[in-house]
Amino acid sequence: MLDCAIIGGGPAGLSAGLYATRGGLKDVVMYEFGLPGGQITQSSEIENYPGVFREDPPISGAELMEPWPKQCMHFGLKHEMEEVKRVERDGDIFKIYLPNEKVVKAKSVIVATGSTPKRAGFKGEEEFLGRGVSTCATCDGFFYKNKEVVVLGGGDTALEEALYLSNICSKVYLVHRRDQFRAAPPTIERVLKKDNIELILNATIKEVYGSNMGVEGVIIEQKGKGEIDLKVPGVFVFVGTIVNNKVLKREDGSFICDVNERGEVIVDLKMRTSLPGLFAAGDVRVDAAKQVVCAAGDGAVAGMEAINYVREHFE
Amino acid sequence: MLDCAIIGGGPAGLSAGLYATRGGLKDVVMYEFGLPGGQITQSSEIENYPGVFREDPPISGAELMEPWPKQCMHFGLKHEMEEVKRVERDGDIFKIYLPNEKVVKAKSVIVATGSTPKRAGFKGEEEFLGRGVSTCATCDGFFYKNKEVVVLGGGDTALEEALYLSNICSKVYLVHRRDQFRAAPPTIERVLKKDNIELILNATIKEVYGSNMGVEGVIIEQKGKGEIDLKVPGVFVFVGTIVNNKVLKREDGSFICDVNERGEVIVDLKMRTSLPGLFAAGDVRVDAAKQVVCAAGDGAVAGMEAINYVREHFE
Repeated sequence: MLDCAIIGGGPAGLSAGLYATRGGLKDVVMYEFGLPGGQITQSSEIENYPGVFREDPPISGAELMEPWPKQCMHFGLKHEMEEVKRVERDGDIFKIYLPNEKVVKAKSVIVATGSTPKRAGFKGEEEFLGRGVSTCATCDGFFYKNKEVVVLGGGDTALEEALYLSNICSKVYLVHRRDQFRAAPPTIERVLKKDNIELILNATIKEVYGSNMGVEGVIIEQKGKGEIDLKVPGVFVFVGTIVNNKVLKREDGSFICDVNERGEVIVDLKMRTSLPGLFAAGDVRVDAAKQVVCAAGDGAVAGMEAINYVREHFE
Repeated sequence: MLDCAIIGGGPAGLSAGLYATRGGLKDVVMYEFGLPGGQITQSSEIENYPGVFREDPPISGAELMEPWPKQCMHFGLKHEMEEVKRVERDGDIFKIYLPNEKVVKAKSVIVATGSTPKRAGFKGEEEFLGRGVSTCATCDGFFYKNKEVVVLGGGDTALEEALYLSNICSKVYLVHRRDQFRAAPPTIERVLKKDNIELILNATIKEVYGSNMGVEGVIIEQKGKGEIDLKVPGVFVFVGTIVNNKVLKREDGSFICDVNERGEVIVDLKMRTSLPGLFAAGDVRVDAAKQVVCAAGDGAVAGMEAINYVREHFE
């Protein structure tokens, strides 16, 4: 039986593993089907992880995460390249369901499966992701300081991110497929008041184009008006997020712990979920800041709390 | 008027400054009377800040923090070497009281003043702090893997930390000046059940001695039994914590925001205190994990939320 099963191998999962093993838990396994490192490894530049900084050029997400697995494994964390299907509580313990009907038992579980930004589906979106196409203004806005950018979307996140960018960038084109926004009225009001946010409504992005250096422009299709070609180096896409919570779903569709209406796992400041022994860390939890340092902080807390839980209940 | 005043220059304050300025706030000042970096700069070794790792010898706290100020200042954060006396709300804004009756106005405030472990007062305590004398088992326990250590204290923290250490170290001597513990009964029970925790009651530490390499032993004085000389390389002191909340105290002694019975600032997952526009990050807040990565994560969240607050209320 494992002392702790960690599901997900991004910054939250790795940091949880580091703290759980270094704190004395013996059998700790991190389940990550791919290579550890998480979403950030797709970013070409990161300059806001405190303490790891190169001015020019900024380090890449892959460079940032490169030393993490070695550091975390150093204290005994094991990595299994398996996709966890489902977690269930069974009496005092957890059962981790793996492919091929394999089941592993664990005293505690840390879920750190993150969330995935939805794709809009335009041409060039995947190709330029992390090199001009972004899904995070806090992460990448600064790289377009005093430049023009396009924001795609019409919900709360899109408008809030457009406002955030309007204070850094010279101009923000806000592209939305309808003529009305779904965001909260005060947010819409603030967007309308901003001189440097230009609305392009009833419009979609047809294509993002560029070179090896990154994005050079966007072709927008506006209903009844045809194509607009904007020469901008950055496009921010906010068309929704998939919270990767399916490992917490029972076969009947209900969740093993409390989640909010968006499917985010509800936690307290100690990363405890409503189910004792189950912790959540990083972007899968409610109010996640979606930053590497925040996910890592969450993971550390969850790792320490998993130790406390195991010591209290199994010793 | 400042967009944001940050009080404290440890990992939480620095990270808050990085996120607030990089996110577009213009006038952001971090008040720290000493050099930025915080408590961790007194530690001789740190190996649990994810992504910054050297196996042998581990990097020091000073080395870890060395690049932080440059990175954070790069985006416009200013550092003022002044000791903030007090913060007060005045209508929609905050007033920051500095020495010599200087008052600075700010739209938002992030308090990141940390907490300070109390000293027990024995000979060698200051001299060997960070080189064998520690105030954090999660931080330093692993450096004494399979070695013997002494823990001083009789409250919840002391016993919880002794339990934590008992799973890493070969033996833990728990020294307490009374014959009864003040900790919660279930915690006491777990301590008594542990084979490798030996109680030394009615006893105090007289002296910690060692060489340039660090601690080599402890002299304990036990009532009625005289001196005990233990050859251990590590001594953990848990005799209480001072929460550095005095900047939040009004002249009448009440606090400008909600604090708990220990004086820790109450926050939600967004680091918002009960007073809008005032955020708390790091060890000054409730349920703080007292780890660099957690404080830095807090700071990032507080920085981002300060931006949202300023944008919503002043634009």
